[in-house]
Amino acid sequence: MSLDAVLSRIDSDLPEAMDRLLDLLRIPSISTDPAFKQDCDRAADWLVADLNGLGVKTQKRTTPGHPMVVGHLDGDGPHLLFYGHYDVQPVDPLELWDRDPFDPQIEQTAKGQVIRGRGSSDDKGQLMTFIEACRAWKAVHGSLPCKLTFFLEGEEESGSPSLVPFMEENAEELKSDIALICDTGLFESKTPAIVTMLRGLLGEEITITGPDMDLHSGMYGGVAINPIRVMSRILASLHDDEGRITIPAFYDGVPELSDELEAQWQGLAFDHNTFLGDVGLSRPAGEQDRTPLEMIWSRPTCEINGIWGGYTGDGFKTVLPSKAQAKVSFRLVGDQDPLVIRENFRKMIRDMLPEDCEVSFGGHGASKASMTETENPAFDAARKALSDEWQVPAAYVGCGGSIPIAGFFQNILGTTPMLVGFGKDDDAIHSPNEKYDVESFHKGIRSWARILEALT
Amino acid sequence: MSLDAVLSRIDSDLPEAMDRLLDLLRIPSISTDPAFKQDCDRAADWLVADLNGLGVKTQKRTTPGHPMVVGHLDGDGPHLLFYGHYDVQPVDPLELWDRDPFDPQIEQTAKGQVIRGRGSSDDKGQLMTFIEACRAWKAVHGSLPCKLTFFLEGEEESGSPSLVPFMEENAEELKSDIALICDTGLFESKTPAIVTMLRGLLGEEITITGPDMDLHSGMYGGVAINPIRVMSRILASLHDDEGRITIPAFYDGVPELSDELEAQWQGLAFDHNTFLGDVGLSRPAGEQDRTPLEMIWSRPTCEINGIWGGYTGDGFKTVLPSKAQAKVSFRLVGDQDPLVIRENFRKMIRDMLPEDCEVSFGGHGASKASMTETENPAFDAARKALSDEWQVPAAYVGCGGSIPIAGFFQNILGTTPMLVGFGKDDDAIHSPNEKYDVESFHKGIRSWARILEALT
Repeated sequence: MSLDAVLSRIDSDLPEAMDRLLDLLRIPSISTDPAFKQDCDRAADWLVADLNGLGVKTQKRTTPGHPMVVGHLDGDGPHLLFYGHYDVQPVDPLELWDRDPFDPQIEQTAKGQVIRGRGSSDDKGQLMTFIEACRAWKAVHGSLPCKLTFFLEGEEESGSPSLVPFMEENAEELKSDIALICDTGLFESKTPAIVTMLRGLLGEEITITGPDMDLHSGMYGGVAINPIRVMSRILASLHDDEGRITIPAFYDGVPELSDELEAQWQGLAFDHNTFLGDVGLSRPAGEQDRTPLEMIWSRPTCEINGIWGGYTGDGFKTVLPSKAQAKVSFRLVGDQDPLVIRENFRKMIRDMLPEDCEVSFGGHGASKASMTETENPAFDAARKALSDEWQVPAAYVGCGGSIPIAGFFQNILGTTPMLVGFGKDDDAIHSPNEKYDVESFHKGIRSWARILEALT
Repeated sequence: MSLDAVLSRIDSDLPEAMDRLLDLLRIPSISTDPAFKQDCDRAADWLVADLNGLGVKTQKRTTPGHPMVVGHLDGDGPHLLFYGHYDVQPVDPLELWDRDPFDPQIEQTAKGQVIRGRGSSDDKGQLMTFIEACRAWKAVHGSLPCKLTFFLEGEEESGSPSLVPFMEENAEELKSDIALICDTGLFESKTPAIVTMLRGLLGEEITITGPDMDLHSGMYGGVAINPIRVMSRILASLHDDEGRITIPAFYDGVPELSDELEAQWQGLAFDHNTFLGDVGLSRPAGEQDRTPLEMIWSRPTCEINGIWGGYTGDGFKTVLPSKAQAKVSFRLVGDQDPLVIRENFRKMIRDMLPEDCEVSFGGHGASKASMTETENPAFDAARKALSDEWQVPAAYVGCGGSIPIAGFFQNILGTTPMLVGFGKDDDAIHSPNEKYDVESFHKGIRSWARILEALT
């Protein structure tokens, strides 16, 4: 009876909950670009104020980077922690947005109402689903059903440099029974899912320098080494013709799927034609002897995220450039060691480098893959709560993305992470015109209310 | 005696001549960027006014692009035409300039005085050497020694799209006995040179599209095709391991050097260690079975002038981009046909393209190589005049750059082009901190006075 009252309250409060989310979305908290440092701070302040308004004792905690927001609420029952991140991805290419990314609005689309704006899905909208569930619960019951800790980060989109030191320094304060993490999605946009397999992430930036200044390709072309040509050869050699990554020892520690998981995944009947068709593609481009679901969930990858060098403006400039640069990232699985891979990757490039070129590297994050223990009865309880809300049996799934926080809870705090989220495949996170379905937001809030009830 | 008076006048007028050049250099006439259209116009106006002041009847002539400056002066003797260009290259990367590229100044360096600023060498400084020679001649003699036509272009750095139509429409007006072209350099920065062999130029812009929007590399990495990876493979395949260009039939029409020219070039004792050492390099990077002088003068090349795609800002963004783009240019020799090469290049790329990608092309200029007939006695006369001024025997040389105008004079007007210039290898044309030595400017003006005397 009391859960029904909370769910009703969520339904009737939805317009106000959306207004609050729009307010938070208006803050351009891009963590990777130093120009938005103050905005990240403002987003943290906004959350501190909102949580204190809920009676959660919350503070902004400084780090060498963007602040953490940490709040505590005493209570009986299990100790649950909630993690989300208030920072967002950059917005370029800005010209591909239909509107200002930080002037969010509710739009009616052919598939239903959506909340449009940077961060609507990743991760401000998801983060607010849990806070709104707590707000409704408190409005109905006057208090929350358990001891709660909020732990909100502002550097997730830029490699979380302050996260591990902060967790280590404040381990006692942050330890809890279950860490609820809301930064994932529904399976195929319709089936509620708890992610139990996450890929790790390693980011590398490469700068190759040839001549020590930009040259005229007429005067020097043909005799001076061109660093873009060198970069192209290096990047082209990272995969073989079958889509396998060629870095020495790269596949060390990559496990094969268990028969059980393989059977479960085949049961999901993943439709890769639709998954790829939604973005204008048709052919799985990874390792040709693997299924598409393996490519995105259980196999490691190497992707070039950016490349630049020479003249890139309008018209033509016959320059032979001094430098070429690229950003490359790896998704890691099983026991792959990011630091060993970094070393082998850099050595491979150094070995390929012509005598007249120099290379320098920058590292961006290095996290191992993680796998959750689902023996804890909380998982079955949460799965049932999700199934009740969505009227579809919830699934344990893998996730192509990297959410290193899950491994950190496990390894640093000994806390079991539980990843539940409501994003859809077409949310365009990290892309222009990011959106979050009002359905995701609404049923997401209701899902958390059900999970709170189930776990306490 | 009268030549001596002109040379003295040049010497005494040098400070004023430099002031006039600085004035012209202050106009940011970047032809390839539409933002500077008005500035190109202003540079043309400046030249019209200056030439009219010299008694040359000069007009700004409109084209679909930037205007031509055309002036005529009646007179006896042979009809000489002078060609130069008033447009300049873009200035990026701006942060590598030690000063505002369009706030030029005279600087004292270890190697002597230089005029620093965009266009100082290419081509405003060179262009003004001829105008200043005429100014001094007129000051001493009251008139010039021959019939003269000035033909100054504003689109040389952006592929000269209006040039051929303009020359064809105004062929009768522009026909002359010799076309003097000042857009080349000294040989090894010290030997006066007449360029008799020019490479052609073909520019191509490639856009490869994979997914129809930027994707999250965590969600799609490993299964969706990455257009930067495709671009890298294509660009890496344009040369084989020996530096040869792999486009089918690319070398059709590439001649071997005549024994005579080969002997003359060996006599020049080109020091490629210094040539490459000046820009921080040591190894000739072109076809490994060719000499460095062949690589830059008589062999065709393929250079990547620019590349871009994905996230190129600060920090990291794990995007799997929708597009990758590159600008590639070819230097052509002998009878290579730019249009056939363009077709073969595009076909080769289409053939390599994975099913899920699309490619589009943009063409930037397509000019054949050219070779000057030096039988005309004017060449020996000019060579002697140059040798007298520089006190070193002048040479007939090749040129790596592409100055299609030379071929146009030959083919459209039947006029013999003569390429004489005073740039040095370290002028950093097309690069940050472009300069022109005061020596080049001063002795360049004197050289033209001597050539005017020798040819009339």
